[in-house]
Amino acid sequence: MSPVRPLHNFSAGPAILPAPVLERASAAVHELKSKGHSDGASGAGLSILEISHRGRDYTEINEQAIDLCHEVLGIPRTHQVMFLQGGASLQFAMVPMNLNRPNRVSCYVDTGVWAGKAIKESRVLGETRVLASAQETGFDHIPEIGEIPSDASYLHLTTNNTIYGTEYPEIPRVRDDIPLVVDASSHIGSRPLDFSRVALGYAGAQKNLGPSGVTLVFADKDLLKDTAATVSSVPHYLRYTTHAKTPGVYNTPNTFGVLVLKLVLEWLRDEGGIEAAATRNAEKSSKLYTLLDSSSLFDAHALPGHRSHMNIPWTLRAPTDAKPDAKPDALTVRFLSEAQAAGFSGLKGHRSVGGCRASIYNALPIASVNALVEFMREFERKA
Amino acid sequence: MSPVRPLHNFSAGPAILPAPVLERASAAVHELKSKGHSDGASGAGLSILEISHRGRDYTEINEQAIDLCHEVLGIPRTHQVMFLQGGASLQFAMVPMNLNRPNRVSCYVDTGVWAGKAIKESRVLGETRVLASAQETGFDHIPEIGEIPSDASYLHLTTNNTIYGTEYPEIPRVRDDIPLVVDASSHIGSRPLDFSRVALGYAGAQKNLGPSGVTLVFADKDLLKDTAATVSSVPHYLRYTTHAKTPGVYNTPNTFGVLVLKLVLEWLRDEGGIEAAATRNAEKSSKLYTLLDSSSLFDAHALPGHRSHMNIPWTLRAPTDAKPDAKPDALTVRFLSEAQAAGFSGLKGHRSVGGCRASIYNALPIASVNALVEFMREFERKA
Repeated sequence: MSPVRPLHNFSAGPAILPAPVLERASAAVHELKSKGHSDGASGAGLSILEISHRGRDYTEINEQAIDLCHEVLGIPRTHQVMFLQGGASLQFAMVPMNLNRPNRVSCYVDTGVWAGKAIKESRVLGETRVLASAQETGFDHIPEIGEIPSDASYLHLTTNNTIYGTEYPEIPRVRDDIPLVVDASSHIGSRPLDFSRVALGYAGAQKNLGPSGVTLVFADKDLLKDTAATVSSVPHYLRYTTHAKTPGVYNTPNTFGVLVLKLVLEWLRDEGGIEAAATRNAEKSSKLYTLLDSSSLFDAHALPGHRSHMNIPWTLRAPTDAKPDAKPDALTVRFLSEAQAAGFSGLKGHRSVGGCRASIYNALPIASVNALVEFMREFERKA
Repeated sequence: MSPVRPLHNFSAGPAILPAPVLERASAAVHELKSKGHSDGASGAGLSILEISHRGRDYTEINEQAIDLCHEVLGIPRTHQVMFLQGGASLQFAMVPMNLNRPNRVSCYVDTGVWAGKAIKESRVLGETRVLASAQETGFDHIPEIGEIPSDASYLHLTTNNTIYGTEYPEIPRVRDDIPLVVDASSHIGSRPLDFSRVALGYAGAQKNLGPSGVTLVFADKDLLKDTAATVSSVPHYLRYTTHAKTPGVYNTPNTFGVLVLKLVLEWLRDEGGIEAAATRNAEKSSKLYTLLDSSSLFDAHALPGHRSHMNIPWTLRAPTDAKPDAKPDALTVRFLSEAQAAGFSGLKGHRSVGGCRASIYNALPIASVNALVEFMREFERKA
């Protein structure tokens, strides 16, 4: 039997990365720089894994990575970029730890599992209000936010929902006096997003930005000044102000992860930047939604107008002439198994939803989407 | 001018890694597995950076890594192994967040910069007592702990001090009713350590265990049961019990970092395990200390009987016949510059101490120590 080689990686994260980035990252693990400097401060001959985060080579990587976040992702220069660890999950705790205010309430919109986890952490730390939820309809849409109370400490939104495949079409405008906080983990870098409307944003890198183990955080410098006075009971490591003072290097960062993030952003820039990526992603998602909407076997989970162009979950329904054993579950299992054998990987839906999901991040070529659409059409024809 | 290639990496961390580990890590960034499985669940053809942490390939890596921590590092099976992020710095906060008890005091021994940072975080979170300190003599020794109060929540020790080059010769026995917490970041894996005496231990990986961005934490399962009742005001992500329930995969871990940690521990096992490493490290450190103690130019910072066999800091004193411009500082600068040019990297002392430091972790071959000793003898002869 010949080895199975997945040619098309639809994993939700850690996810597909651009081939030239992987090549350069692999080379850097072997040797960061093969040419030496003459001033005695070079990491020539060493692996990226072996060099000090205080040395000149890493300092350069860190500074370039921060700069690329501004330049390529459109994070305004009014905001401080930081590279933390612990994923979005640690941010679920750090946000209320840093932004809670006495006699105020932390406000959230519940758009699914990840928003729910953020809400859960907030409830441990203070009074929390869910302004809107899409739970009743299985998180198939982005609910209206409604009125934001004037005693809100902040408003937290999950702007793309990896599991349910819903997305805010743009960063909403909210009242000026309430800081807007966004978890943009699974769509940052995929389209222009107006981060000037955001007081604090964060994203786990393992979708559009790089490998796991790096969290991009950016915060309005004025907001940071405000928090400085109120975080005296928060451990230093968990204060945004701590990391803002020495961006990227308060303590030993995930140096390899930041290097790969830098390589990914350089690739994104060289491929035409975020506008070009948005065009490609619109084409990719449109092909899949067109198929799903015209199919009598596959059902898109998210409602039109609320759909993510990064994560596209669907379910299978048994065709009307199905054999008695062709239950939807068995059919899904068969679909996933045949898809894997045909070279499609990562299509299994999240364990909390089931079904299937295609994550079509920046690095996924349109050829992979075309191949998947073709495969699904053929599967439906034979089903 | 021919490129400078540092052949000898004495960096304090991120630090030298074994060449075969770097080769395998580099290959895994390119492609984790080149041979496919036939059951459709394989990551064949994908990079370690691109595969889900919930998939079978990573699950296997994670479980093997945990197992190797027990087998190779000697962490008892009574203890739960976890892979966290945020380095020792996050542990400085998590320890008091999880182990503080009402009406009790958190106890520390102050053995330098890193112990000081742990103490600083503890002071934010509750009553803190420093039982002993070596500050008055520049942290050149490990102070006697003295009596541990019966109202201690726990006792925290930094068992090897990367910056000042001091080390507890063994994990001390303390009273049975007080949990002992150790930061073993810079000597774990270097010699047998009796972790059965430890209730909770942690180590940033970037010295003897792998790359930066992974923190090994291990905790007595009985201790975890005790904390479960008292951490209701701690965010879930910052509770040890959260990570102990789903070891390594509560949220997306640093998957690449854990893979490299696994490769390092396999290498350590195959090189004869921790006892063989201890023998090699004793020989390496002994050569350097012998030189330092017989030199009239170089002074070891740490006192005999308290010396680390992983981190060896020293200063230079001006020889009695020094020219007027040969101030100790200028001499140190010249030493470091000539050393770098001769192929020795990472010898600059920590910014909070100055001078020089050789970190001689497991992966550093004795040939590098021999070459450094030779270079230092020659430098002294010409100075």
